Amino acid sequence: MSNQTTFDAYPTVEVIQQVGSDGMIVQAARVSSGNDLDAATVKTQTGLINFLVKNRHGSPFEHGSITFRVHCPIFVAREFMRHRAGWSYNETSGRYRELEPAFWVPSTYRPMTQEGKPGEYRLTQGADNRDKAEKAQEQLCRSYGYVWSAYREMLEAGIPREVARAVLPVGIYTDFYATANPRAVMHFLSLRTEDDRATVPSFPQQEIQDVAVRMEEAFEAYWPITYAAWNENGRVPV
Amino acid sequence: MSNQTTFDAYPTVEVIQQVGSDGMIVQAARVSSGNDLDAATVKTQTGLINFLVKNRHGSPFEHGSITFRVHCPIFVAREFMRHRAGWSYNETSGRYRELEPAFWVPSTYRPMTQEGKPGEYRLTQGADNRDKAEKAQEQLCRSYGYVWSAYREMLEAGIPREVARAVLPVGIYTDFYATANPRAVMHFLSLRTEDDRATVPSFPQQEIQDVAVRMEEAFEAYWPITYAAWNENGRVPV
Amino acid sequence: MSNQTTFDAYPTVEVIQQVGSDGMIVQAARVSSGNDLDAATVKTQTGLINFLVKNRHGSPFEHGSITFRVHCPIFVAREFMRHRAGWSYNETSGRYRELEPAFWVPSTYRPMTQEGKPGEYRLTQGADNRDKAEKAQEQLCRSYGYVWSAYREMLEAGIPREVARAVLPVGIYTDFYATANPRAVMHFLSLRTEDDRATVPSFPQQEIQDVAVRMEEAFEAYWPITYAAWNENGRVPV
Amino acid sequence: MSNQTTFDAYPTVEVIQQVGSDGMIVQAARVSSGNDLDAATVKTQTGLINFLVKNRHGSPFEHGSITFRVHCPIFVAREFMRHRAGWSYNETSGRYRELEPAFWVPSTYRPMTQEGKPGEYRLTQGADNRDKAEKAQEQLCRSYGYVWSAYREMLEAGIPREVARAVLPVGIYTDFYATANPRAVMHFLSLRTEDDRATVPSFPQQEIQDVAVRMEEAFEAYWPITYAAWNENGRVPV
Repeated sequence: MSNQTTFDAYPTVEVIQQVGSDGMIVQAARVSSGNDLDAATVKTQTGLINFLVKNRHGSPFEHGSITFRVHCPIFVAREFMRHRAGWSYNETSGRYRELEPAFWVPSTYRPMTQEGKPGEYRLTQGADNRDKAEKAQEQLCRSYGYVWSAYREMLEAGIPREVARAVLPVGIYTDFYATANPRAVMHFLSLRTEDDRATVPSFPQQEIQDVAVRMEEAFEAYWPITYAAWNENGRVPV
Repeated sequence: MSNQTTFDAYPTVEVIQQVGSDGMIVQAARVSSGNDLDAATVKTQTGLINFLVKNRHGSPFEHGSITFRVHCPIFVAREFMRHRAGWSYNETSGRYRELEPAFWVPSTYRPMTQEGKPGEYRLTQGADNRDKAEKAQEQLCRSYGYVWSAYREMLEAGIPREVARAVLPVGIYTDFYATANPRAVMHFLSLRTEDDRATVPSFPQQEIQDVAVRMEEAFEAYWPITYAAWNENGRVPV
Repeated sequence: MSNQTTFDAYPTVEVIQQVGSDGMIVQAARVSSGNDLDAATVKTQTGLINFLVKNRHGSPFEHGSITFRVHCPIFVAREFMRHRAGWSYNETSGRYRELEPAFWVPSTYRPMTQEGKPGEYRLTQGADNRDKAEKAQEQLCRSYGYVWSAYREMLEAGIPREVARAVLPVGIYTDFYATANPRAVMHFLSLRTEDDRATVPSFPQQEIQDVAVRMEEAFEAYWPITYAAWNENGRVPV
Repeated sequence: MSNQTTFDAYPTVEVIQQVGSDGMIVQAARVSSGNDLDAATVKTQTGLINFLVKNRHGSPFEHGSITFRVHCPIFVAREFMRHRAGWSYNETSGRYRELEPAFWVPSTYRPMTQEGKPGEYRLTQGADNRDKAEKAQEQLCRSYGYVWSAYREMLEAGIPREVARAVLPVGIYTDFYATANPRAVMHFLSLRTEDDRATVPSFPQQEIQDVAVRMEEAFEAYWPITYAAWNENGRVPV
């Protein structure tokens, strides 16, 4: 554990293990229909997967698994873990260990102007974006430093970790393992990315998108046919 | 919305709506077995429910629903929402609204000395309990005040809520609705309370227990026979 | 228990208990956003619920519960119970009780001609519909009678129920309790009904539709605003 | 597809794909606690996994996946698919394809005498076991043959598969893919096997046990340390 305070704008996402493929999805779908679908409707793996996505036959997309290790701020982890169906989690505990002084700050390019109505707003870069971002960086870093000192002092005074941690901000970085099947990953991506191909627009916060795009790259690499079919069909949950 | 800063040691839990009863559980169980169970094995509702708990026939306990409104610190809400199966949530969002300056502090009676091994420790009251608690109160309140000012300043400078909130501590109070069926409530209580009747001991943090005991009172009131059977069988999840 | 053999074309669906309302959904959604949504975006309950459906904010629709008692053939129950998320079940067990001789047969109006490709086919009424339906009725009733005799003979010979039941057809009626939240009900209805208002067409078998339309009536009665918003937005799962 | 009628007493279970190991479970658990647990409480992987099982820290056991292809009678598949949490399924559909004439019959060694009370009974071998089993075989085979002819006749008369299948018995074999994480597999095994090491006895039907023991062998092979810890702790769900 390092006690060197760090400030970072971006999360990290690492693939820990994975199983399953487009071929496995096809195999699972065919147990249902035999080869009838091939003869009459689709000629190829690509055709069958496209058919499944288009008609929302979601269950074949559950036969696979991918485990991510995610390093992101607590406010992002909290949104992430609202996904329940098909997801499993293990996260660093502030009860069981001292946390490390790694904190999130926005980059100067991070859009800082809110436009639109509640629930549907987007953040854009106004003329004063750099000013606002720098002001946020300054306020956040100063506050993070202040509460980190308080945290350390409490621990040194013998106050339990589970009490002292109450002072730590939701901008502190946390680490967790997240395991999901392909269907659950697609559901996550449909809500946590903004993409022109999406039939139904989503309005995720930038910082969970930063996690989602890293997951999306991995998803495309492991299930390329499924990924393409999902995009062609409007990135709607299957 | 009030901007009067408050410091509280205890959560509130309110029952918003409820449906189902011990009788409904019995009715659901009997669709499976007809009246055979009654004739041969159990004479009464109490006997049947006891039989179901003892033999881990859990599904009849899912035909019911209770909705709580919970007001507790974020660090408690985070533990709470790790319960996925049978639970539904809606929580105050720091993206969509400004939060209120209500913060958690321990009471002076809150046990402040950690005893036992990691993963199995308990907190007890040492001779210096009051000193430690007061020190924690002081550090927490001062830090909460500091970061709340930073939060307000950022908002006034036009920095978006979703960025400014990063500075807020996990000790700030949040509000959420949580809906569950009786089986899911029992599972929650078995992990989040410490009780001499429990066959398998649990080591929950005091602050989530403070929420759990309020839920347990409601559970006992609405499903008294189930509640008694669960206690008699070691408070194990069914 | 009756041993009078019956043949029926249609299921029954009874509402056993229910809790929650459109108002509860609105209340749960507002804990997230405060009153901001009202001031800026929506003026009314109807407006807010429509906003939630359109933008796929599904979680507020989980704070409610409805319990059905369903009487339908096993082949329908099998499709029904593939719905896992948000659903709970208790069903009559052929291990624990003798089943009753109630069997499904199609009415003479039941469409008997398959049109379209595998996975997307619809059944229509050809000119010979009545002939086919009567032929099916005859074959089914004769077979049901044959195997019911075998079932009874095995039971009388002391063969265990759990062995003897292997002979019973998937066309025999079963009974189960099914409990779900409004979100899960909408998901079920979107896949198990055929409706012109649906953005994504579904191809459910007639007999599960017969169950679904009875559930849909109840859903509309208890959550009328949600029901209308869901229809206006293409009956897509939220 | 074969139209050769077959009668079999036993299911088959094949492992299709798998990911995860005892080491992955340890890795997921340690993100929570750092290395504290090792230093103070446990010295080894085995010690940590034993600690997790004993204290019902179930979440680390969700980071893994195993996919089975199961061939078993419909009455077994129906019990199997009542397991919802952590399980995914795709099964042969009698709507989309003609089923094959493969049917279950008990072996002559299959216990045929029911002892004990409803919900807790066991089947034992009485003196007349062979007689009863042969009688059941005879009745079942004759009935299976009768309804298979009816099924074929209906299909040849142009009656849709989804109607004709109503005549098929729950003793016919079906095929499905089932994917689960290690925690869900242990939960399944605790309810679907009878074992002297179990703290809480279960009373599964022989035929689902025949499936479960084949799954248990695979589970032991892939997660040997977890498997041993689960047995040492009474085969209770974690």
